Amino acid sequence: MGQTAIIGGGVIGLGVAWELARRGERVTVFERDRVGAGASSAAAGMLCPMAELDFVEDELLALKRDSLARYPEFARALQALTDLDVQLRLEGTLSVAIDRDDAADLRRHYEHRRSLDLPVEWFSGAQVRAAEPALSPRIQAAIYVPGEGQVDNRLLVTALARAAYLAGVEIREGVEVQEILTNGGRVRGVRTSQDLPFEHVVLAAGAWSRRLGLPGFNPPVRPVRGEMIAVMMEPGDALGCVVRAPDCYLVPRADGRLLIGATSDEVGFDTRITAGGLFELLRGATETLPGVREFEVVETWAGLRPGTLDNDPILGHTAIRGLVAATGHYRNGILLLPATAHYISEAVLSGSDPDAIAGFGPRRFDR
Amino acid sequence: MGQTAIIGGGVIGLGVAWELARRGERVTVFERDRVGAGASSAAAGMLCPMAELDFVEDELLALKRDSLARYPEFARALQALTDLDVQLRLEGTLSVAIDRDDAADLRRHYEHRRSLDLPVEWFSGAQVRAAEPALSPRIQAAIYVPGEGQVDNRLLVTALARAAYLAGVEIREGVEVQEILTNGGRVRGVRTSQDLPFEHVVLAAGAWSRRLGLPGFNPPVRPVRGEMIAVMMEPGDALGCVVRAPDCYLVPRADGRLLIGATSDEVGFDTRITAGGLFELLRGATETLPGVREFEVVETWAGLRPGTLDNDPILGHTAIRGLVAATGHYRNGILLLPATAHYISEAVLSGSDPDAIAGFGPRRFDR
Repeated sequence: MGQTAIIGGGVIGLGVAWELARRGERVTVFERDRVGAGASSAAAGMLCPMAELDFVEDELLALKRDSLARYPEFARALQALTDLDVQLRLEGTLSVAIDRDDAADLRRHYEHRRSLDLPVEWFSGAQVRAAEPALSPRIQAAIYVPGEGQVDNRLLVTALARAAYLAGVEIREGVEVQEILTNGGRVRGVRTSQDLPFEHVVLAAGAWSRRLGLPGFNPPVRPVRGEMIAVMMEPGDALGCVVRAPDCYLVPRADGRLLIGATSDEVGFDTRITAGGLFELLRGATETLPGVREFEVVETWAGLRPGTLDNDPILGHTAIRGLVAATGHYRNGILLLPATAHYISEAVLSGSDPDAIAGFGPRRFDR
Repeated sequence: MGQTAIIGGGVIGLGVAWELARRGERVTVFERDRVGAGASSAAAGMLCPMAELDFVEDELLALKRDSLARYPEFARALQALTDLDVQLRLEGTLSVAIDRDDAADLRRHYEHRRSLDLPVEWFSGAQVRAAEPALSPRIQAAIYVPGEGQVDNRLLVTALARAAYLAGVEIREGVEVQEILTNGGRVRGVRTSQDLPFEHVVLAAGAWSRRLGLPGFNPPVRPVRGEMIAVMMEPGDALGCVVRAPDCYLVPRADGRLLIGATSDEVGFDTRITAGGLFELLRGATETLPGVREFEVVETWAGLRPGTLDNDPILGHTAIRGLVAATGHYRNGILLLPATAHYISEAVLSGSDPDAIAGFGPRRFDR
């Protein structure tokens, strides 16, 4: 067995595994289902630290921007190793306002982001339509953020699993970790159908992180369901860049699919698609991009975001030595992947948390 | 080979086949796909001659009521032979008005139906909610029609195929009729991969009826797409009877499924599900039955109704002796099944069209 066990084969677990293996660590990933079966495949792959900014999240914004800045090199390295293009596209994003209330709200966000010196631009309705002619003529204005964009998160799962494998990681799918084994306040391994010794354990189980019932570390992660629809764009009404609208977001893929997301419901481990969820998404999409009405619906699905008590991620060493958390990424798992892989690997190998993630340690909930 | 070939293994073809076999005829059904693969499985199975009445369709109304009256005996005979219960439910239907304009429109329909001495009743909003508590409190009024209801059309396909088989019908799935063979103005058989002799041919190919390209008989049937959604009802918000609303209909099944239908689009042989179609259905459903928002979406599908030039069915002898049409049932194929099976069998065996279907002969389009 390797030195490090990673619990969870989503993009976070695989990304950390790959990075540790590149640095010479022996790593085993335990995935209860298939790799990427959870939120990693359900996500839309938006990379929008600034378009999705609320008024209060300075420290998280810095980590998101750090992670976005790492993406081009991260994707390049992945492709060099695996020959898979994860379709990183950073052509900018539009956050649109449809009615006047939306526009006033959007303007306040714009002023706030300008006050932080963020690279955002204000687009008039005419500028929006010049950039994306298929958008509704009702749209009043938009914030344009250059350099943001998307990655194909399902390709990312495939590429990361392949990269981890090629780097020597052992990936054990269909194997559930029942318990993290400790001894005198220090990790000594994990229990699956047998007890397996490990020096380090990284908990990257997303919404399922709380199920392990570990004495002394019970991360406050809960599932937040998001429902999604994929439609196939018709050439004349296709969208080019990621668009955030008041009631949905739209993510156009290179293969012609358009992802429409996402609802947000606290309903436990329930991934059913509801009539109300689809209705809200379709209403939001049709008022933003009228041509969507003619688009074929090709898939509907739901995933579980790992939300936390404060909805910030949980990153770094726990009170148990050798046990590191990399979970609770909520809406930002795909975006935060390169930074998480980098800093968590660093934390595992150095034994202490890098400054960049110091504000997201699991011990903040002890207070 | 038998005496009669039936082109089309939907409920109409199977129903006519079963009836002819019961009367001693040897019958072969040719179905290009699987039995019931077309509109028969896509339908909702509503049996509503009066709830769906427009202002002008007297002759069709008589045929629909005739057919509805035959349903209990038809279902009983099917069950006696096949042991399958097709879930015929005739507990009445509600046509609801949501806003005041709807209510004024509904009232005119009510007066018209009363003037025809039809058994319809006017329900106030309070009466509607007493009958179906899960319906929206916004509903202003409804027409209640006792004796109408539904049948499970997918079970009907299964039961009819089994009944036809047990009665001696040969059902050839995956076999396409390329041509109807004639000689001197009289049918002599059909061409599949070979020429097969038959005395009679019944054309029951629904929306595909026009594709045969038969000289002298090219029925004006076109596909009219209908999109549908099935959700699973939650006990507290379940619906009991069929409800027609301004923008959708709702058909609750005994197994807890609720069918929401149906869009109507003339887009050729295209059974794609569109974002706009689902959106309209979900909008109609949520404003009629608010609890539908929480219901799980379990299936979406589309079917092709066989519409005709005047949207009446095409029933009876063509200009080619021995060739009988039983197609173009548009929205009414399930409802008109027992009458069609009865009168078309009669027409085949007697050589002339019964009075009940005289107004629906294929030769009306020659004028």
